[in-house]
Amino acid sequence: MTPATVDSPGRPTLEEVARLAGVSRATVSRVINASPKVSPEVQAVVEAAIAELNYVPNRAARSLVARATMSIALVVPEDAHRFFGDPYFADIVQGISDRLDDSDYVLNLQLTHPSSPSEKTRRYLLGGNVDGALVVSHHSGDHFLASIGQSLPVVFGGRPMGAAGTPGRPTDYYVDVDNRLGAVQGTRHLIASGRRAIGTITGPRDMPAALDREQGWRDALLEAGLSDERVAHGDFTEEGGAAAAEELLDRHRDLDAIFVASDLMASGALGILAGRGRSVPADVAVVGYDNSRYATRGPIQLTTVAQPTRQMGIAMADTLLRLLAGEQPQHVQLLPTELILRDSA
Amino acid sequence: MTPATVDSPGRPTLEEVARLAGVSRATVSRVINASPKVSPEVQAVVEAAIAELNYVPNRAARSLVARATMSIALVVPEDAHRFFGDPYFADIVQGISDRLDDSDYVLNLQLTHPSSPSEKTRRYLLGGNVDGALVVSHHSGDHFLASIGQSLPVVFGGRPMGAAGTPGRPTDYYVDVDNRLGAVQGTRHLIASGRRAIGTITGPRDMPAALDREQGWRDALLEAGLSDERVAHGDFTEEGGAAAAEELLDRHRDLDAIFVASDLMASGALGILAGRGRSVPADVAVVGYDNSRYATRGPIQLTTVAQPTRQMGIAMADTLLRLLAGEQPQHVQLLPTELILRDSA
Repeated sequence: MTPATVDSPGRPTLEEVARLAGVSRATVSRVINASPKVSPEVQAVVEAAIAELNYVPNRAARSLVARATMSIALVVPEDAHRFFGDPYFADIVQGISDRLDDSDYVLNLQLTHPSSPSEKTRRYLLGGNVDGALVVSHHSGDHFLASIGQSLPVVFGGRPMGAAGTPGRPTDYYVDVDNRLGAVQGTRHLIASGRRAIGTITGPRDMPAALDREQGWRDALLEAGLSDERVAHGDFTEEGGAAAAEELLDRHRDLDAIFVASDLMASGALGILAGRGRSVPADVAVVGYDNSRYATRGPIQLTTVAQPTRQMGIAMADTLLRLLAGEQPQHVQLLPTELILRDSA
Repeated sequence: MTPATVDSPGRPTLEEVARLAGVSRATVSRVINASPKVSPEVQAVVEAAIAELNYVPNRAARSLVARATMSIALVVPEDAHRFFGDPYFADIVQGISDRLDDSDYVLNLQLTHPSSPSEKTRRYLLGGNVDGALVVSHHSGDHFLASIGQSLPVVFGGRPMGAAGTPGRPTDYYVDVDNRLGAVQGTRHLIASGRRAIGTITGPRDMPAALDREQGWRDALLEAGLSDERVAHGDFTEEGGAAAAEELLDRHRDLDAIFVASDLMASGALGILAGRGRSVPADVAVVGYDNSRYATRGPIQLTTVAQPTRQMGIAMADTLLRLLAGEQPQHVQLLPTELILRDSA
């Protein structure tokens, strides 16, 4: 089948649906917009054609006739364990909720499958059920979320990334901190306190924030003439941080400091250090990242890089509301990080 | 203005909208259903009339023309602090997500204001944006959520309650445990171990689960001929549990056991007992409720009443899916509780 007109390569058009169903464009439009003028038989035929072609109504076309839903999706491609276990999400949701409280929009939270939303979530988001979307915890392998900004007003929490580590689109809107610079701050503090064998526990390598923090750790070491060979990979969970700490300690007997890319992982690492009788900070200094409740939960108070997570949520919601109001907010907002000094380093 | 026909007292009708806008009923219907046959001018006039009368389209009327949204709302009338802080919600969401994974529906999580959803959430839920709703953490003062089952297929997590403690409607669907019996189990265990001055820390008294647990504690004491005077009220948070424990210890010097209506509150109470040098269980035995991660987090492992929270989420989602499929599931499902014996009692 050769499409008569296409708005983007490979995307089925209204014309194709009409041709397959054997009806006019106007009839397809009426079915999409739930007009009462369409008979149940015609509706069934058109819906079958829409399903067969995987057709998603064009937003611009819909907006001519359909009313706003007055709802904004927050898309979180993580399972419930990660979502409820990491205080980052509570703070982001709190900030977004606070900002939307002053608006006419409701928040519609969509927990989707880790790394990639399901087909039904994709259809839901593109099917006119939300006016815009906020996306956090975006993983690089997810082509759908990487390109969702082409179909819907979208603001990302954290710099989005294209497939296989390619940069995001210049047209993307996002709110972030300078993760690289935050990691440089934390690692420079370890160097200034005399540490020389400084390892890192990274986040998942398909997430820009994790890659940027690893790069910042590396940059700080290299500018001081120190080795960047002590690396173990975590997954932003407490268990993952513990496993990575075991690996670092086994492989590098001289390890005297660790920069850990999240407080939750650092909490796991502190447990392993205690279990092995390594004193913190005397034997091994630890710097975390987030300044979440995990930084102050245990017996050792964590030195950590603070990011203003709740403010990031507010800024994300604010940017999306401005887009929906037809304004032109700036594409990129970087909020400041701050090193919080406590006991662990 | 006297309405020509009304489906419930005080609720504006399609006829009233048509009269105010000066158009026919059919035209109002076309605007509601976003028909392309309506001019922008007429659409604006009708939408102004809808806004002025606060008209919400009737679900039955809409369902004749509008297509299903294939989304289910989970309505949680709690702030983000409670939602993320209490593991009950993580387990409920996990269960619901697991069940919906096998369906064509997406989950649309709506965090609303504590005790009562905002007007915009009310409009959203009744405005045809979801096919059905699951409601957890329902508070008795909330008339809207108490009656939402009249407008939409709804399944409650926990027995719903009408205004001012009146029973819910016999037509309500809900999944619950027998909270009274669970509390009887926990309190009988304290009595059997020789305790005689047994207090309780309750949940918020506008929630049926909290009232039922308090009643179970009282029933077990009275059947053993013991006093039910040692009561302090909490709010299902850790801080609230700590404050209530202070109150109990100050008022009742002879206190030798506490039945606490949630593990999170019990965790707060254990902190206070430790701070006052009261040994657990030697001086004061403690039984919690939930068997959440807070039961096993601290130095003292908590004896607790387990409820199958994840299974309750699965059963709620399953019941709603059956309602949406036109089946007739049973109205009430009670899942079993189990006393888990650990160190604290």
